[in-house]
Amino acid sequence: MENTTTQKPYIIVFEGIDGSGKSTQINIVYELLKDKNVKLLREPGSTEIGEKIRDILKSQKLDPKTQTFLIEASRAHMIENHLKGFKGIVLLDRFIYSTIAYQGYGFGIDISFLKTLNDFVCDIYTPDIVFLLDIDPKTALKRLKREKDVFENLDFLKRVRDGYLELAKEYSFYTIDASKNVEAITDEITAVLKQHGILS
Amino acid sequence: MENTTTQKPYIIVFEGIDGSGKSTQINIVYELLKDKNVKLLREPGSTEIGEKIRDILKSQKLDPKTQTFLIEASRAHMIENHLKGFKGIVLLDRFIYSTIAYQGYGFGIDISFLKTLNDFVCDIYTPDIVFLLDIDPKTALKRLKREKDVFENLDFLKRVRDGYLELAKEYSFYTIDASKNVEAITDEITAVLKQHGILS
Repeated sequence: MENTTTQKPYIIVFEGIDGSGKSTQINIVYELLKDKNVKLLREPGSTEIGEKIRDILKSQKLDPKTQTFLIEASRAHMIENHLKGFKGIVLLDRFIYSTIAYQGYGFGIDISFLKTLNDFVCDIYTPDIVFLLDIDPKTALKRLKREKDVFENLDFLKRVRDGYLELAKEYSFYTIDASKNVEAITDEITAVLKQHGILS
Repeated sequence: MENTTTQKPYIIVFEGIDGSGKSTQINIVYELLKDKNVKLLREPGSTEIGEKIRDILKSQKLDPKTQTFLIEASRAHMIENHLKGFKGIVLLDRFIYSTIAYQGYGFGIDISFLKTLNDFVCDIYTPDIVFLLDIDPKTALKRLKREKDVFENLDFLKRVRDGYLELAKEYSFYTIDASKNVEAITDEITAVLKQHGILS
Protein backbone atom coordinates (compact mmCIF):
# COMPACT_ATOMS: atom_id res chain seq x y z
CA MET A 1 0.00 0.00 0.00
CA GLU A 2 1.42 3.30 -1.11
CA ASN A 3 -0.42 5.67 1.16
CA THR A 4 0.00 4.41 4.71
CA THR A 5 1.51 7.72 5.73
CA THR A 6 -1.31 9.91 4.40
CA GLN A 7 -4.37 11.01 6.29
CA LYS A 8 -6.93 9.18 4.19
CA PRO A 9 -8.04 5.57 3.89
CA TYR A 10 -7.12 3.50 0.85
CA ILE A 11 -10.35 3.59 -1.17
CA ILE A 12 -11.31 0.74 -3.49
CA VAL A 13 -14.52 1.25 -5.44
CA PHE A 14 -16.72 -1.29 -7.21
CA GLU A 15 -18.96 0.12 -9.93
CA GLY A 16 -21.39 -1.36 -12.42
CA ILE A 17 -25.09 -1.71 -13.15
CA ASP A 18 -27.33 -3.89 -10.99
CA GLY A 19 -26.81 -7.52 -11.93
CA SER A 20 -23.13 -7.05 -12.75
CA GLY A 21 -22.09 -9.09 -9.71
CA LYS A 22 -20.52 -6.09 -7.97
CA SER A 23 -21.90 -6.90 -4.52
CA THR A 24 -20.89 -10.58 -4.79
CA GLN A 25 -17.30 -9.60 -5.62
CA ILE A 26 -16.99 -6.90 -2.96
CA ASN A 27 -18.09 -9.41 -0.32
CA ILE A 28 -15.49 -11.94 -1.51
CA VAL A 29 -12.77 -9.27 -1.39
CA TYR A 30 -13.95 -8.22 2.07
CA GLU A 31 -13.48 -11.81 3.27
CA LEU A 32 -9.98 -11.93 1.74
CA LEU A 33 -9.02 -8.74 3.57
CA LYS A 34 -10.72 -9.48 6.88
CA ASP A 35 -7.47 -9.72 8.86
CA LYS A 36 -6.69 -6.11 7.90
CA ASN A 37 -8.27 -2.83 9.06
CA VAL A 38 -11.02 -2.79 6.45
CA LYS A 39 -14.54 -1.36 6.12
CA LEU A 40 -17.20 -2.47 3.65
CA LEU A 41 -19.54 0.41 2.78
CA ARG A 42 -22.28 0.99 0.23
CA GLU A 43 -23.88 3.97 -1.45
CA PRO A 44 -26.38 5.25 -0.77
CA GLY A 45 -26.30 4.04 2.82
CA SER A 46 -23.64 2.98 5.34
CA THR A 47 -24.82 5.26 8.15
CA GLU A 48 -28.19 5.47 9.93
CA ILE A 49 -28.95 8.66 7.98
CA GLY A 50 -27.59 7.18 4.75
CA GLU A 51 -29.83 4.13 5.06
CA LYS A 52 -32.86 6.39 5.63
CA ILE A 53 -31.89 8.24 2.46
CA ARG A 54 -31.58 4.90 0.64
CA ASP A 55 -35.10 3.99 1.76
CA ILE A 56 -36.43 7.30 0.43
CA LEU A 57 -34.70 6.74 -2.93
CA LYS A 58 -36.11 3.20 -3.23
CA SER A 59 -39.61 4.20 -2.10
CA GLN A 60 -40.70 5.92 -5.31
CA LYS A 61 -39.43 7.26 -8.61
CA LEU A 62 -37.98 10.70 -7.90
CA ASP A 63 -36.94 13.42 -10.33
CA PRO A 64 -33.19 13.31 -11.11
CA LYS A 65 -32.29 16.53 -9.23
CA THR A 66 -33.86 15.26 -6.01
CA GLN A 67 -32.10 11.91 -6.51
CA THR A 68 -28.77 13.64 -7.05
CA PHE A 69 -28.93 15.71 -3.87
CA LEU A 70 -30.14 12.80 -1.74
CA ILE A 71 -27.23 10.69 -2.99
CA GLU A 72 -24.73 13.48 -2.34
CA ALA A 73 -26.16 13.92 1.17
CA SER A 74 -25.66 10.22 1.88
CA ARG A 75 -22.12 10.47 0.46
CA ALA A 76 -21.26 13.49 2.59
CA HIS A 77 -22.55 11.74 5.71
CA MET A 78 -20.62 8.56 4.96
CA ILE A 79 -17.37 10.47 4.38
CA GLU A 80 -17.88 12.48 7.57
CA ASN A 81 -18.65 9.43 9.69
CA HIS A 82 -16.64 6.58 8.14
CA LEU A 83 -13.78 7.98 6.06
CA LYS A 84 -12.57 10.97 8.06
CA GLY A 85 -9.77 9.92 10.37
CA PHE A 86 -9.80 6.31 9.11
CA LYS A 87 -6.51 5.06 7.68
CA GLY A 88 -7.39 1.49 6.77
CA ILE A 89 -8.92 0.12 3.58
CA VAL A 90 -12.41 1.08 2.45
CA LEU A 91 -14.32 -1.10 0.01
CA LEU A 92 -17.08 0.90 -1.57
CA ASP A 93 -20.10 -0.61 -3.32
CA ARG A 94 -20.78 2.36 -5.64
CA PHE A 95 -19.33 5.85 -5.27
CA ILE A 96 -19.06 9.11 -7.25
CA TYR A 97 -19.05 7.41 -10.66
CA SER A 98 -22.51 5.92 -10.08
CA THR A 99 -23.88 9.46 -9.84
CA ILE A 100 -22.26 10.47 -13.12
CA ALA A 101 -23.34 7.25 -14.87
CA TYR A 102 -26.94 7.16 -13.59
CA GLN A 103 -27.96 10.77 -12.92
CA GLY A 104 -25.66 12.16 -15.62
CA TYR A 105 -25.50 9.76 -18.58
CA GLY A 106 -28.77 8.06 -17.62
CA PHE A 107 -31.03 10.94 -16.62
CA GLY A 108 -29.29 13.84 -18.34
CA ILE A 109 -28.11 15.95 -15.40
CA ASP A 110 -25.18 18.10 -16.55
CA ILE A 111 -22.04 15.99 -16.09
CA SER A 112 -19.65 18.83 -15.30
CA PHE A 113 -22.05 20.00 -12.60
CA LEU A 114 -22.08 16.49 -11.11
CA LYS A 115 -18.28 16.44 -11.13
CA THR A 116 -18.27 19.77 -9.26
CA LEU A 117 -20.63 18.30 -6.64
CA ASN A 118 -18.53 15.16 -6.31
CA ASP A 119 -15.30 17.14 -5.92
CA PHE A 120 -16.90 19.29 -3.24
CA VAL A 121 -18.18 16.29 -1.31
CA CYS A 122 -15.08 14.11 -1.67
CA ASP A 123 -12.41 16.66 -0.86
CA ILE A 124 -9.34 14.44 -0.31
CA TYR A 125 -11.37 11.23 -0.14
CA THR A 126 -10.87 10.19 -3.75
CA PRO A 127 -10.67 6.57 -4.96
CA ASP A 128 -7.33 4.76 -5.23
CA ILE A 129 -8.60 1.84 -7.31
CA VAL A 130 -11.86 1.54 -9.27
CA PHE A 131 -13.19 -1.74 -10.63
CA LEU A 132 -15.90 -1.51 -13.28
CA LEU A 133 -17.84 -4.74 -13.64
CA ASP A 134 -19.01 -4.29 -17.19
CA ILE A 135 -21.97 -6.23 -18.49
CA ASP A 136 -24.59 -6.02 -21.19
CA PRO A 137 -27.81 -4.70 -19.56
CA LYS A 138 -29.87 -7.54 -21.11
CA THR A 139 -27.65 -10.14 -19.45
CA ALA A 140 -27.77 -8.23 -16.17
CA LEU A 141 -31.56 -8.07 -16.17
CA LYS A 142 -31.75 -11.79 -16.99
CA ARG A 143 -29.56 -12.50 -13.97
CA LEU A 144 -31.84 -10.37 -11.83
CA LYS A 145 -34.77 -12.33 -13.28
CA ARG A 146 -36.58 -9.23 -14.42
CA GLU A 147 -37.44 -7.91 -17.82
CA LYS A 148 -36.68 -4.35 -16.88
CA ASP A 149 -35.09 -2.53 -14.02
CA VAL A 150 -37.41 -1.57 -11.15
CA PHE A 151 -37.50 2.04 -12.27
CA GLU A 152 -35.81 2.17 -15.63
CA ASN A 153 -35.87 0.52 -19.01
CA LEU A 154 -33.22 -1.12 -21.15
CA ASP A 155 -32.39 2.06 -23.09
CA PHE A 156 -31.69 3.84 -19.82
CA LEU A 157 -29.36 1.06 -18.66
CA LYS A 158 -27.55 1.11 -22.00
CA ARG A 159 -26.86 4.83 -21.53
CA VAL A 160 -25.60 4.13 -18.01
CA ARG A 161 -23.32 1.36 -19.25
CA ASP A 162 -21.93 3.57 -22.03
CA GLY A 163 -21.39 6.30 -19.44
CA TYR A 164 -19.43 3.92 -17.25
CA LEU A 165 -17.26 2.92 -20.22
CA GLU A 166 -16.52 6.60 -20.94
CA LEU A 167 -15.58 7.14 -17.30
CA ALA A 168 -13.41 4.02 -17.36
CA LYS A 169 -11.26 5.63 -20.06
CA GLU A 170 -11.21 9.04 -18.38
CA TYR A 171 -10.27 7.78 -14.90
CA SER A 172 -8.33 4.59 -15.72
CA PHE A 173 -10.70 2.09 -14.13
CA TYR A 174 -9.94 -1.62 -14.15
CA THR A 175 -12.72 -2.77 -16.45
CA ILE A 176 -13.68 -6.41 -16.01
CA ASP A 177 -15.88 -8.50 -18.27
CA ALA A 178 -18.62 -9.32 -15.78
CA SER A 179 -20.27 -11.93 -18.01
CA LYS A 180 -17.53 -14.34 -16.87
CA ASN A 181 -18.09 -16.67 -13.91
CA VAL A 182 -17.59 -15.51 -10.32
CA GLU A 183 -14.20 -17.22 -9.84
CA ALA A 184 -12.71 -15.78 -13.03
CA ILE A 185 -13.78 -12.27 -12.00
CA THR A 186 -12.38 -12.70 -8.50
CA ASP A 187 -9.07 -13.85 -10.02
CA GLU A 188 -8.85 -10.65 -12.08
CA ILE A 189 -9.65 -8.49 -9.08
CA THR A 190 -7.19 -10.20 -6.75
CA ALA A 191 -4.46 -9.93 -9.38
CA VAL A 192 -4.91 -6.14 -9.38
CA LEU A 193 -4.97 -6.00 -5.58
CA LYS A 194 -1.73 -7.99 -5.44
CA GLN A 195 -0.17 -5.65 -7.97
CA HIS A 196 -1.05 -2.71 -5.67
CA GLY A 197 0.26 -4.51 -2.58
CA ILE A 198 -3.18 -4.77 -0.96
CA LEU A 199 -3.14 -8.56 -1.07
CA SER A 200 -0.02 -10.64 -0.80
CA MET B 1 -49.30 40.98 -10.68
CA GLU B 2 -46.79 41.49 -13.42
CA ASN B 3 -46.19 37.93 -14.46
CA THR B 4 -49.57 36.35 -15.16
CA THR B 5 -48.45 35.48 -18.66
CA THR B 6 -45.21 33.70 -17.67
CA GLN B 7 -44.83 30.02 -16.94
CA LYS B 8 -43.86 30.35 -13.30
CA PRO B 9 -45.74 31.13 -10.10
CA TYR B 10 -45.32 34.48 -8.36
CA ILE B 11 -42.94 33.59 -5.54
CA ILE B 12 -42.97 35.49 -2.25
CA VAL B 13 -40.35 34.40 0.27
CA PHE B 14 -40.20 35.01 4.02
CA GLU B 15 -36.74 34.74 5.54
CA GLY B 16 -35.31 35.26 9.01
CA ILE B 17 -33.96 33.39 12.02
CA ASP B 18 -36.25 31.30 14.22
CA GLY B 19 -38.20 33.56 16.54
CA SER B 20 -38.38 36.40 14.00
CA GLY B 21 -42.13 35.88 13.58
CA LYS B 22 -41.77 34.70 9.98
CA SER B 23 -44.28 31.87 10.26
CA THR B 24 -46.85 34.08 12.04
CA GLN B 25 -46.66 36.62 9.24
CA ILE B 26 -46.77 34.14 6.40
CA ASN B 27 -49.94 32.63 7.86
CA ILE B 28 -51.58 36.07 8.12
CA VAL B 29 -50.67 36.82 4.50
CA TYR B 30 -51.99 33.42 3.44
CA GLU B 31 -55.34 34.27 5.04
CA LEU B 32 -55.41 37.64 3.26
CA LEU B 33 -54.79 35.93 -0.10
CA LYS B 34 -57.05 32.93 0.41
CA ASP B 35 -59.52 33.92 -2.32
CA LYS B 36 -56.68 33.72 -4.84
CA ASN B 37 -54.83 30.73 -6.28
CA VAL B 38 -52.20 30.55 -3.53
CA LYS B 39 -49.98 27.90 -1.96
CA LEU B 40 -48.26 28.11 1.42
CA LEU B 41 -45.06 26.05 1.45
CA ARG B 42 -42.13 25.64 3.81
CA GLU B 43 -38.51 24.55 3.54
CA PRO B 44 -37.40 21.95 4.18
CA GLY B 45 -40.69 20.15 3.68
CA SER B 46 -43.89 20.70 1.70
CA THR B 47 -43.96 17.25 0.08
CA GLU B 48 -44.05 13.79 1.63
CA ILE B 49 -40.35 13.35 0.76
CA GLY B 50 -39.54 16.89 1.89
CA GLU B 51 -41.13 16.31 5.28
CA LYS B 52 -39.13 13.07 5.68
CA ILE B 53 -36.00 15.09 4.92
CA ARG B 54 -37.09 17.71 7.47
CA ASP B 55 -37.43 14.96 10.09
CA ILE B 56 -33.91 13.72 9.32
CA LEU B 57 -32.50 17.26 9.64
CA LYS B 58 -34.26 17.80 12.98
CA SER B 59 -33.33 14.36 14.35
CA GLN B 60 -29.68 15.10 15.07
CA LYS B 61 -26.90 17.57 14.47
CA LEU B 62 -25.50 16.82 11.02
CA ASP B 63 -22.33 18.10 9.39
CA PRO B 64 -22.96 21.14 7.14
CA LYS B 65 -22.35 19.35 3.82
CA THR B 66 -24.95 16.69 4.61
CA GLN B 67 -27.36 19.41 5.75
CA THR B 68 -26.80 21.35 2.54
CA PHE B 69 -27.54 18.44 0.23
CA LEU B 70 -30.59 17.32 2.20
CA ILE B 71 -32.01 20.85 2.01
CA GLU B 72 -31.31 21.07 -1.72
CA ALA B 73 -33.00 17.68 -2.22
CA SER B 74 -36.11 18.91 -0.41
CA ARG B 75 -36.00 22.11 -2.50
CA ALA B 76 -35.69 20.21 -5.77
CA HIS B 77 -38.61 17.97 -4.82
CA MET B 78 -40.80 20.93 -3.83
CA ILE B 79 -40.06 22.76 -7.07
CA GLU B 80 -40.76 19.63 -9.12
CA ASN B 81 -44.03 18.87 -7.35
CA HIS B 82 -45.45 22.26 -6.35
CA LEU B 83 -43.92 25.00 -8.50
CA LYS B 84 -43.65 23.43 -11.94
CA GLY B 85 -46.76 24.19 -13.94
CA PHE B 86 -48.31 26.32 -11.17
CA LYS B 87 -49.12 29.90 -12.12
CA GLY B 88 -50.64 31.21 -8.89
CA ILE B 89 -48.92 32.74 -5.89
CA VAL B 90 -46.47 30.78 -3.74
CA LEU B 91 -45.72 31.89 -0.19
CA LEU B 92 -42.48 30.32 0.94
CA ASP B 93 -41.42 29.98 4.58
CA ARG B 94 -37.63 29.92 3.90
CA PHE B 95 -35.98 29.39 0.52
CA ILE B 96 -32.54 29.65 -1.10
CA TYR B 97 -31.34 32.49 1.16
CA SER B 98 -31.72 30.34 4.29
CA THR B 99 -29.13 27.97 2.85
CA ILE B 100 -26.68 30.81 2.20
CA ALA B 101 -27.31 32.39 5.61
CA TYR B 102 -27.20 29.19 7.70
CA GLN B 103 -24.95 26.76 5.83
CA GLY B 104 -22.84 29.53 4.27
CA TYR B 105 -22.46 32.42 6.71
CA GLY B 106 -23.30 30.23 9.73
CA PHE B 107 -21.40 27.01 9.08
CA GLY B 108 -18.79 28.22 6.59
CA ILE B 109 -19.74 26.36 3.42
CA ASP B 110 -18.39 28.25 0.42
CA ILE B 111 -21.02 30.84 -0.52
CA SER B 112 -20.37 30.89 -4.26
CA PHE B 113 -20.73 27.09 -4.29
CA LEU B 114 -24.08 27.41 -2.50
CA LYS B 115 -25.21 29.98 -5.07
CA THR B 116 -24.27 27.55 -7.85
CA LEU B 117 -26.35 24.84 -6.18
CA ASN B 118 -29.30 27.17 -5.69
CA ASP B 119 -29.19 28.35 -9.31
CA PHE B 120 -29.11 24.76 -10.52
CA VAL B 121 -32.07 23.75 -8.35
CA CYS B 122 -34.19 26.86 -8.94
CA ASP B 123 -33.80 27.19 -12.68
CA ILE B 124 -36.57 29.72 -13.54
CA TYR B 125 -38.23 29.44 -10.12
CA THR B 126 -36.61 32.49 -8.57
CA PRO B 127 -38.26 34.72 -5.94
CA ASP B 128 -40.26 37.80 -6.97
CA ILE B 129 -40.41 39.36 -3.49
CA VAL B 130 -38.32 38.55 -0.42
CA PHE B 131 -39.19 39.74 3.07
CA LEU B 132 -36.43 39.57 5.66
CA LEU B 133 -37.77 39.67 9.20
CA ASP B 134 -34.70 41.02 10.91
CA ILE B 135 -34.26 40.59 14.64
CA ASP B 136 -31.50 40.49 17.22
CA PRO B 137 -30.79 36.82 17.99
CA LYS B 138 -31.03 37.46 21.76
CA THR B 139 -34.56 38.83 21.36
CA ALA B 140 -35.47 35.93 19.08
CA LEU B 141 -34.25 33.34 21.57
CA LYS B 142 -36.15 35.11 24.38
CA ARG B 143 -39.32 34.88 22.30
CA LEU B 144 -38.69 31.19 21.76
CA LYS B 145 -38.14 30.87 25.53
CA ARG B 146 -34.77 29.25 25.15
CA GLU B 147 -31.29 30.36 26.03
CA LYS B 148 -29.80 28.99 22.88
CA ASP B 149 -31.02 27.54 19.64
CA VAL B 150 -31.63 23.79 19.64
CA PHE B 151 -28.43 23.13 17.73
CA GLU B 152 -26.54 26.39 17.66
CA ASN B 153 -25.33 29.15 19.93
CA LEU B 154 -25.73 32.90 19.90
CA ASP B 155 -22.52 33.55 17.94
CA PHE B 156 -23.77 31.24 15.20
CA LEU B 157 -27.11 33.07 15.01
CA LYS B 158 -25.31 36.42 14.88
CA ARG B 159 -23.35 35.22 11.85
CA VAL B 160 -26.59 34.04 10.24
CA ARG B 161 -28.27 37.39 10.89
CA ASP B 162 -25.29 39.31 9.46
CA GLY B 163 -25.40 37.01 6.45
CA TYR B 164 -29.06 37.78 5.91
CA LEU B 165 -28.32 41.50 6.08
CA GLU B 166 -25.60 41.10 3.44
CA LEU B 167 -28.00 39.18 1.21
CA ALA B 168 -30.67 41.83 1.77
CA LYS B 169 -28.38 44.40 0.18
CA GLU B 170 -27.28 42.11 -2.61
CA TYR B 171 -30.77 40.95 -3.62
CA SER B 172 -32.91 43.96 -2.61
CA PHE B 173 -34.98 42.27 0.08
CA TYR B 174 -37.66 44.16 1.97
CA THR B 175 -36.03 44.20 5.39
CA ILE B 176 -38.49 44.61 8.24
CA ASP B 177 -37.70 45.36 11.86
CA ALA B 178 -39.14 42.23 13.42
CA SER B 179 -38.89 43.52 16.99
CA LYS B 180 -42.08 45.49 16.29
CA ASN B 181 -45.48 44.07 17.16
CA VAL B 182 -47.31 41.65 14.86
CA GLU B 183 -49.78 44.24 13.50
CA ALA B 184 -47.08 46.76 12.63
CA ILE B 185 -45.12 44.10 10.74
CA THR B 186 -48.22 42.93 8.87
CA ASP B 187 -48.91 46.57 7.87
CA GLU B 188 -45.44 46.86 6.35
CA ILE B 189 -45.80 43.58 4.47
CA THR B 190 -49.27 44.36 3.12
CA ALA B 191 -48.08 47.80 1.98
CA VAL B 192 -45.41 46.09 -0.14
CA LEU B 193 -47.89 43.56 -1.49
CA LYS B 194 -50.30 46.37 -2.49
CA GLN B 195 -47.45 48.18 -4.19
CA HIS B 196 -46.81 45.04 -6.27
CA GLY B 197 -50.50 44.57 -7.05
CA ILE B 198 -50.77 41.31 -5.09
CA LEU B 199 -53.24 42.81 -2.63
CA SER B 200 -55.75 45.50 -3.52
